[in-house]
Amino acid sequence: MTADITAQDLHEAGAVLAAESARFASFGWMRGTSGNLSVVLSREPLLLAVTASGHDKGELTPADVVLVDGQGAAVQGGKPSAEAELHARVAALTGAGAVVHVHTVASVTMGHRQPGGIAFRDVEMLKGVGQPAHDVEVVLPVIANSQDMKELGDRLEEARNPLMPAVVVAGHGLYVWGADPRQARHYTEVVEWLLELELARR
Amino acid sequence: MTADITAQDLHEAGAVLAAESARFASFGWMRGTSGNLSVVLSREPLLLAVTASGHDKGELTPADVVLVDGQGAAVQGGKPSAEAELHARVAALTGAGAVVHVHTVASVTMGHRQPGGIAFRDVEMLKGVGQPAHDVEVVLPVIANSQDMKELGDRLEEARNPLMPAVVVAGHGLYVWGADPRQARHYTEVVEWLLELELARR
Amino acid sequence: MTADITAQDLHEAGAVLAAESARFASFGWMRGTSGNLSVVLSREPLLLAVTASGHDKGELTPADVVLVDGQGAAVQGGKPSAEAELHARVAALTGAGAVVHVHTVASVTMGHRQPGGIAFRDVEMLKGVGQPAHDVEVVLPVIANSQDMKELGDRLEEARNPLMPAVVVAGHGLYVWGADPRQARHYTEVVEWLLELELARR
Amino acid sequence: MTADITAQDLHEAGAVLAAESARFASFGWMRGTSGNLSVVLSREPLLLAVTASGHDKGELTPADVVLVDGQGAAVQGGKPSAEAELHARVAALTGAGAVVHVHTVASVTMGHRQPGGIAFRDVEMLKGVGQPAHDVEVVLPVIANSQDMKELGDRLEEARNPLMPAVVVAGHGLYVWGADPRQARHYTEVVEWLLELELARR
Repeated sequence: MTADITAQDLHEAGAVLAAESARFASFGWMRGTSGNLSVVLSREPLLLAVTASGHDKGELTPADVVLVDGQGAAVQGGKPSAEAELHARVAALTGAGAVVHVHTVASVTMGHRQPGGIAFRDVEMLKGVGQPAHDVEVVLPVIANSQDMKELGDRLEEARNPLMPAVVVAGHGLYVWGADPRQARHYTEVVEWLLELELARR
Repeated sequence: MTADITAQDLHEAGAVLAAESARFASFGWMRGTSGNLSVVLSREPLLLAVTASGHDKGELTPADVVLVDGQGAAVQGGKPSAEAELHARVAALTGAGAVVHVHTVASVTMGHRQPGGIAFRDVEMLKGVGQPAHDVEVVLPVIANSQDMKELGDRLEEARNPLMPAVVVAGHGLYVWGADPRQARHYTEVVEWLLELELARR
Repeated sequence: MTADITAQDLHEAGAVLAAESARFASFGWMRGTSGNLSVVLSREPLLLAVTASGHDKGELTPADVVLVDGQGAAVQGGKPSAEAELHARVAALTGAGAVVHVHTVASVTMGHRQPGGIAFRDVEMLKGVGQPAHDVEVVLPVIANSQDMKELGDRLEEARNPLMPAVVVAGHGLYVWGADPRQARHYTEVVEWLLELELARR
Repeated sequence: MTADITAQDLHEAGAVLAAESARFASFGWMRGTSGNLSVVLSREPLLLAVTASGHDKGELTPADVVLVDGQGAAVQGGKPSAEAELHARVAALTGAGAVVHVHTVASVTMGHRQPGGIAFRDVEMLKGVGQPAHDVEVVLPVIANSQDMKELGDRLEEARNPLMPAVVVAGHGLYVWGADPRQARHYTEVVEWLLELELARR
């Protein structure tokens, strides 16, 4: 195994990611085998545990995890999703310890309606991502989709709003990041709730 | 521990609140770590058990509870939510034995559409909050949001409709109260159902 | 106990009704303590087991059941819902062995939009209530609500469509009946699905 | 038992189909006793295990399965659904190893709105059915409903789009197929998600 990451470390990370995935899958946010989750195991060098590609996200086991480097290349385990590269980039760029990528109907619909970014304001739930509940507009960026992870990462880096730990990828879904898997989970729930509110408001 | 409230009392209250929270969380009404629940343990002096701040509301344990006084200040346990002050005020004002605060999309959407209050009439479900099913209009008040709990409490006190054990806080969510946690649960479900009905009716 | 109905019979009926109630409650169709279910235990004289009033419909035990006669009056057990009288009348009128009464948002919304009755046609799901999937219009009657069970029963009797084992009570909810609790469950699911389809179609 | 299919084979197939059915039923896609699932057990001659007709699809046991031939006629077990004939035809026509038929509100609503076929384009989720996420329009065919399985099969054969392992039957529901029950499940979830997206977008 790489440097300081033991097989046991990777297994434990896999167990956490499996539990988080099952939670998101139960909400219908990871239909088919869509989406993927990651957690940072080492900063220097950057190493992340990422959910393995092609599995049902409601049925992952602790073994369904891949260790990838800062370029998203597999260091240990099976085949990572191509999107592992973007997870690594988000972690490097934002300092996040965990990244969530889900496919929700609300995020794709709102990205379609407001391709220039989705503005929230005067909603208490904004406090759930560390923003004020009053008088401040917070924009969730929307970026164009791409199969080129370098290109997608450039767009994310350029569009990223430091006030909002998330980005909508148009026609695709949602990326959210936090200090650890639990915070990333809560940020994901908060951002999705805000999107569902906008959908209901029209 | 304070006067007559034992650690065992607080633990038992925590167990009840954890179960109620898990129920509301399963409905998607407590996304992120939003919302909080309380139960009155003593009337004179007023003492309430309130769910601890910052936790996932689907994963509370009996220990994730704080004992607060009539000003919402912690008497025992960790850090209460700032909203504990409003819970205490609702309990003092209404005589309720339990208070529920949840963040639902329907309540925020309807509060946005009808900022002057949401009127219900001729719906059998009104009997679920003790009102007649026919010929009487019952208004669910909507109050403006605030981070100042004193101000929010003043608004609630002024707007409160004695026929309706609930208030919508605009851009925020729903406060509901009842004689005990079970009644508060049922009133919450009834009020949310009424709001979802209004949303579906448009 | 009455004639041939033993305490064991009533307990077994209570267990079936508790399981069916928990199922409907999990769908959000019995919020608060709304709705009630019944099963016929004797035809002559007519005797039904009806869920007890005031309980959470997701938490009933086999003991939360009342034996009522053809007028809905309690023969054994606690306090029946006033609506027990209507359950008994539906059983007498239709020959049904089980009656389901739930409060669904779709039924109240559609009853509001189409107070003269809701027509379905050319939908395969109609076969789920024994009707043809093609070329025949089947109307789900809508009747005005009342707190007088005699009046409500008269309206149901007059409006009843022999092709449809269900009636919408405007501003109230749905009554559905079948040969036994399982068939009543399936008819309820089918009728609710048809109502949700109409809602989605607009 | 037929040729190489043992009672144990059929029982194991029944267990898989029961689990898949319970999953779809939990999503509300098999209300009443609607829908049916199948898995191919032999290619030459064509033999499929199909869920038995008339049962609650959330409560199937491994025994609630019928072995049918290429015409959908029962070889072993109880009474198959009339739709077993269409399952067999889909398996023969497409080479699929598993077929899913569910009744979803989204599929019937979208089939009603776009009777000429539902076009998807520029959605990442299309990759979940093996299609490109960009620049290519993929059409989900919609065919008219029929009670004549031969006629329905002819329509499906004529309308079928080799790029899309699914067909909407107007006023009825969704047929989806895959190499095995798991792939058929994932394709079903992906197609349903795409339909729900179109519904939300309007």
